[in-house]
Amino acid sequence: MTAALFFDFVIVCLNSVMATLLDIGVSAAINILSAFAFLLAFAILRLQPFNDRVYFPKWYLKGLRSSPSSNGAFVRKFVNLDYTSYLKILAWIPAALQMPESELIEHAGLDSAVYLRIYLLGLKIFVPIAFLGFAILVPVNYTNNTLESMKVEYSDVDKLSISNIPKGSDRFWTHLVMAYAFTFWTCYVLLKEYEKVAQMRLHFLASEGRRPDQFTVLVRNVPPDPDESISELVEHFFLVNHPDHYLTHQIVYDANKLSKVVKKKKNMKNWLDFYQLRHERNPSKRPIRKTGFLGLCGEKVDAIDYYTSEIAKLSKEEVEERDRLNGQNSIIPAAFVSFRTRWGAAVCAQTQQTRNPTIWLAEWAPEPRDVYWNNLAVPFVHLTIRRLIIAVALFFLIFFFMIPIAFVQSLANIEGIEKAVPFLKPLIERKSMKLIKSFIQGFLPGIALKIFLILLPTILMLMSKFEGFVALSILERKSASKYYLFLLVNVFLGNIITGTAFQQLNTFIHQSVNDFPRIIGVAIPMKASFFITFVMVDGWAGVAGEILRLKPLIIYHLRNFFLVKTEKDREEAMEPGSFDFGSSEPQLQLYFLLGLAYAVVTPFLLPYILIFFGLAYVVFRHQVINVYNQEYESAAAFWPDVHGRIICALIISQVLLLGLLSTKEAANSTPFLIALPILTIWFNKFCKSRYESAFKKYPLQEAMMKDTLERIKEPNLDLKNFLLSAYINPVFKEMDEDDSASCFDKDGDFENILVPTKRSSRRNTPVPSKYNDSASPSLSDIGREQQL
Amino acid sequence: MTAALFFDFVIVCLNSVMATLLDIGVSAAINILSAFAFLLAFAILRLQPFNDRVYFPKWYLKGLRSSPSSNGAFVRKFVNLDYTSYLKILAWIPAALQMPESELIEHAGLDSAVYLRIYLLGLKIFVPIAFLGFAILVPVNYTNNTLESMKVEYSDVDKLSISNIPKGSDRFWTHLVMAYAFTFWTCYVLLKEYEKVAQMRLHFLASEGRRPDQFTVLVRNVPPDPDESISELVEHFFLVNHPDHYLTHQIVYDANKLSKVVKKKKNMKNWLDFYQLRHERNPSKRPIRKTGFLGLCGEKVDAIDYYTSEIAKLSKEEVEERDRLNGQNSIIPAAFVSFRTRWGAAVCAQTQQTRNPTIWLAEWAPEPRDVYWNNLAVPFVHLTIRRLIIAVALFFLIFFFMIPIAFVQSLANIEGIEKAVPFLKPLIERKSMKLIKSFIQGFLPGIALKIFLILLPTILMLMSKFEGFVALSILERKSASKYYLFLLVNVFLGNIITGTAFQQLNTFIHQSVNDFPRIIGVAIPMKASFFITFVMVDGWAGVAGEILRLKPLIIYHLRNFFLVKTEKDREEAMEPGSFDFGSSEPQLQLYFLLGLAYAVVTPFLLPYILIFFGLAYVVFRHQVINVYNQEYESAAAFWPDVHGRIICALIISQVLLLGLLSTKEAANSTPFLIALPILTIWFNKFCKSRYESAFKKYPLQEAMMKDTLERIKEPNLDLKNFLLSAYINPVFKEMDEDDSASCFDKDGDFENILVPTKRSSRRNTPVPSKYNDSASPSLSDIGREQQL
Repeated sequence: MTAALFFDFVIVCLNSVMATLLDIGVSAAINILSAFAFLLAFAILRLQPFNDRVYFPKWYLKGLRSSPSSNGAFVRKFVNLDYTSYLKILAWIPAALQMPESELIEHAGLDSAVYLRIYLLGLKIFVPIAFLGFAILVPVNYTNNTLESMKVEYSDVDKLSISNIPKGSDRFWTHLVMAYAFTFWTCYVLLKEYEKVAQMRLHFLASEGRRPDQFTVLVRNVPPDPDESISELVEHFFLVNHPDHYLTHQIVYDANKLSKVVKKKKNMKNWLDFYQLRHERNPSKRPIRKTGFLGLCGEKVDAIDYYTSEIAKLSKEEVEERDRLNGQNSIIPAAFVSFRTRWGAAVCAQTQQTRNPTIWLAEWAPEPRDVYWNNLAVPFVHLTIRRLIIAVALFFLIFFFMIPIAFVQSLANIEGIEKAVPFLKPLIERKSMKLIKSFIQGFLPGIALKIFLILLPTILMLMSKFEGFVALSILERKSASKYYLFLLVNVFLGNIITGTAFQQLNTFIHQSVNDFPRIIGVAIPMKASFFITFVMVDGWAGVAGEILRLKPLIIYHLRNFFLVKTEKDREEAMEPGSFDFGSSEPQLQLYFLLGLAYAVVTPFLLPYILIFFGLAYVVFRHQVINVYNQEYESAAAFWPDVHGRIICALIISQVLLLGLLSTKEAANSTPFLIALPILTIWFNKFCKSRYESAFKKYPLQEAMMKDTLERIKEPNLDLKNFLLSAYINPVFKEMDEDDSASCFDKDGDFENILVPTKRSSRRNTPVPSKYNDSASPSLSDIGREQQL
Repeated sequence: MTAALFFDFVIVCLNSVMATLLDIGVSAAINILSAFAFLLAFAILRLQPFNDRVYFPKWYLKGLRSSPSSNGAFVRKFVNLDYTSYLKILAWIPAALQMPESELIEHAGLDSAVYLRIYLLGLKIFVPIAFLGFAILVPVNYTNNTLESMKVEYSDVDKLSISNIPKGSDRFWTHLVMAYAFTFWTCYVLLKEYEKVAQMRLHFLASEGRRPDQFTVLVRNVPPDPDESISELVEHFFLVNHPDHYLTHQIVYDANKLSKVVKKKKNMKNWLDFYQLRHERNPSKRPIRKTGFLGLCGEKVDAIDYYTSEIAKLSKEEVEERDRLNGQNSIIPAAFVSFRTRWGAAVCAQTQQTRNPTIWLAEWAPEPRDVYWNNLAVPFVHLTIRRLIIAVALFFLIFFFMIPIAFVQSLANIEGIEKAVPFLKPLIERKSMKLIKSFIQGFLPGIALKIFLILLPTILMLMSKFEGFVALSILERKSASKYYLFLLVNVFLGNIITGTAFQQLNTFIHQSVNDFPRIIGVAIPMKASFFITFVMVDGWAGVAGEILRLKPLIIYHLRNFFLVKTEKDREEAMEPGSFDFGSSEPQLQLYFLLGLAYAVVTPFLLPYILIFFGLAYVVFRHQVINVYNQEYESAAAFWPDVHGRIICALIISQVLLLGLLSTKEAANSTPFLIALPILTIWFNKFCKSRYESAFKKYPLQEAMMKDTLERIKEPNLDLKNFLLSAYINPVFKEMDEDDSASCFDKDGDFENILVPTKRSSRRNTPVPSKYNDSASPSLSDIGREQQL
């Protein structure tokens, strides 16, 4: 049950433990070849018109590209016969690099542009470090013969590493000075980058057009009031406490069930389309399907009839559900409150509203696409309890994840099955079963782990959702933090000291504090060749595989064949995808960690990391320009997390070096290393206080500037109308496109449903609503006006 | 050089190590007697009219009590001859307890009232715990004979403690359940108390009258501008960014030097008074003094002439300094900005003003008495660097404080002197010197440590001041945190595992993590009798000593005799003192820590702590009512710190119990203890999010409510006039009382100095100042208006 199982795909390459430069060269050649194979396949496939929507979906979504014209030969529509284009198979690389950053931001949003800067940051940090490492550390290390004199088995990689320096040598001063140089360089680059990204974010926020979230604050935990509806309560509260700034608000419905029904219906429709298409192509035979689990068992029925009736059922359910939303009970004690000015919204989002800090919780509204509607209703006490539960669960997930997997694996073990179900014994021990047995034993244990690892980001996302965050961008960031912890413990530490995290934990509890970094520090140089292979397999090949987009390619063609009837269907069949921040950023951070940890110890690892960052930068820039379509825009709100994790990697690397040197009896130099982590922690604090607020707060000066400009440019702006339907749950918006199931009449009843007009009690109204003429407080009034 | 030296005053009592119940009984009797002696002395001294100003200064300051009438016999003025009053020597106790809390808050402020609640909190926590401990734990512990059977030396105290339970016994379940019960009870009481204090604070803030700090925000780090003065810059910035709310502002002068001169002059005047009074009493002889160090050496001069000329010199210097303050250069880039409404101030204090979070730093202004003027000018980058320096310095202070003291002590050592200055050797080794030698050797080492301990709170306060906090209340709170850390490491841990903190640190670094709590946990029960003595000597006797006020008593009578000429002088001779939060609260926290750590282990310690809390509550309530005069009012802003430290003590006690039980081979029960610290940390987080904001933020609803009420009550209030001179450095205010050195003419030039009227550049004025009529932006305008 070693943690090396974690990279069972790496193990193949590791069977002959990479020890010499030649071995690494061979491995590198294999990986470079496979990466090139991927790139070549991509270069050819992207030129075929019938793959156009797989490799250029972004342009389709932007409306700048349309399906290949139906003129010309039929074959031309599917295969590119222009031989000259094949000669330029690497043409996509300069194309990907050409677009300037400002245009990129406009094209794909700030999130993507800043995400690409992480790769660039990797290059900025590691190019000078690699240069210094090879210019100074490699000669210093190589011109010893400690390893030879020790007569132990050693590899050529080790000869270039710190292992080749004799104990107590004065040469360790070089490594000490280099550790300081690397730290200062990394901090300098990080500082510049934080400054640049903060400035980009502020510029982006300042230059973007009018958007509903600039004026809107999300208010949660509205306390219940016996005399007033939630809508009235919100209106009165903000009329009293923000009298000059409050404009309007939008209440929130508990539409979770409705969303589910709508989603299910959509799925059923897809199947209906599939069978109808099949029927059209082969009219002689009505398609049939089974009603049971996944259509594998149960009664056979006519598929078209079955799905038609299922859809009718769901439509009815949908109507009922929408009817239910008429009632008061389905209103959530939360609201999107909009203000007349950005200044008013900035004030409300940054201040505390009432004595009790657990009610009337105001925070910036995420942009409408970014809202995670299911979590808006979670009360405050639940939030704190849920976070405790998730913290404990995460600890167990990280340190004990092998236990359930080992259990599943032991079930898959034939001897285990024999013990559990003894009467199968004779059957299993038949000679003909030998082959199957060995197959199961060799294959299944790995599968269980692999399934877990594939599911892991989803599990972490579910945990984050359970914690009750209200925006998709926050959910992604929180999942990323959890995933990083998992990778740090189980991949980095887990591979350095072989053994599961649980075993490590046990070891460490029984070791002295001083020994923590020492044990790991000593193990670090020995694992250099393993991590070099890891960078090549996981990094290089992974990036090359990303650009090939094998999964979307297959899915698109399947859908195109089975489901697509109209151009709109074809549009929906595209899966442009996006940066999956929750799982890709932590993996990326692993390379920063490896680079920093090995920078002083084994500089030979750095070029591999440089190639990874360079390759990944080009590939992902291409993807951002041509493929990805971000679901939401958080204006690079993730940067503090990225910065923090690189700082974390830096501190880990310093502590490990401290541990390593303390075993090398370099008593003169080691104590000078202690200042490094302290300075790094302080640097992090400084950066936090200096730049973090740009990502959390919205300065009043900026808000005022934009408000003033807008007032001059558009003095007669009807802001209320602009905000009217910005924060309506998308499930209600789909209603318009949806013909069958709308329960809303077109002439104003819709608004009646959003805010019931029942207003029996005015007792608690604190001030007469002097805004009735200029700013009617809620949608209900518009509804009534329209009815009159 | 053991840490036990720290309590060399305790060591006397410890010479016969307290081991048996009888010994503790004797010690208790001695301490109770000495405490009673103090109380008796107090009861008698307080009845003497000539001590009236020592024991009832608060009433004098309030103007509710005046010097004993000059009618009646001369003796009556000094000695109380009314025998009946001596019979009621304990009458002060009910008197101290009678005043209801609401009246107490009005009488002495919320800070004092809430500070008293800490003692009450101690009683609330420990009375039920002590009851449970004696009802359940003591019988469970006592009905074993482990200690007898082990044939080791043991004390009766140990027989009542957990040490008497055999290893692996199932009886440890009792302790486990009790640990849970004690934790839940403590958390429950803490929660209720936090709620109550938060509510008291909000009520206090809501019910107090109009105060300048409600409308004012302190803005620091105003960026330099080549075209505008700081005053203009502040005005324009707030007119633009808070147009509807900005009222006026007050710039700040760098008057640190002036304060020093004024202080020095005041001191000189005291000496002049002293010599004049001496001369009056003995007119035949002019008093003389020496000009050198402390008047001990140097030329002899006529003292009255000397001080008169010195004062004249200082007066000239003061005038020059005040003239210098006319210039632009002495203006600090900080300002007190006042708003029209509390709402406007609350908004400004809670929001970020500009893109750059290091300039225009806005925070609530402390109340005028609370401002620490010297730190207003520290720039942002300095602040972060200073905090780093202090963090490192504090670490060294806590763990290595014994090194410089040991050095001083070794100097005091005669052999050390002999080595350093060999030619003194024959002199020292003379027989007559033997006595002096042994005296120096026995006495001086202790003195060095004692001086350090007396100076420690002052050192910590200086460190806090260096960190750059801007309010006295914050300085006190930060010093308290540092002192608590010192006490925790050097008193609590230092006495449990004997050895200096540095030695401990060294031990711990070489121990496993698991062993940390184990080593301390095992040592805990053995030190119970030491801490019982500590509670009696430091706690009981200390509290009784506090009420006697020996130092103020002596100082008052000395001053009264040597300096007092007028009734005003007598007023100034009183030293009412106040709660010194920075040093007294951490000492108090030590008792919470002891109580919680020993609650499960040795419940026998609890009654001693209960008596301490009870006695201290009565004594300090008396002091608050009759003596103390708080310098400032922070509205109980310290409560989150108090709460946090009790939580910290709770977690320490849980971890130590975990360590102790793990050595007792109570394998069944120990794992169940792990949940306790996790739950406690979570509880702390919950409390923080639930109540802390009441101490950090000012809710908009509250502000709006007060604003509205005020507008109704006083529609024609001239707020600007009210705020006019609220935030002027007290050194300028003293000017009025000061006849000789005022450089300000009475007819308006004063304002000219505060804000120079030179306004050459209006180029950068962002908007025309439409407020000129209703709200002139600075004092300079008032000045000009008055001149017109």
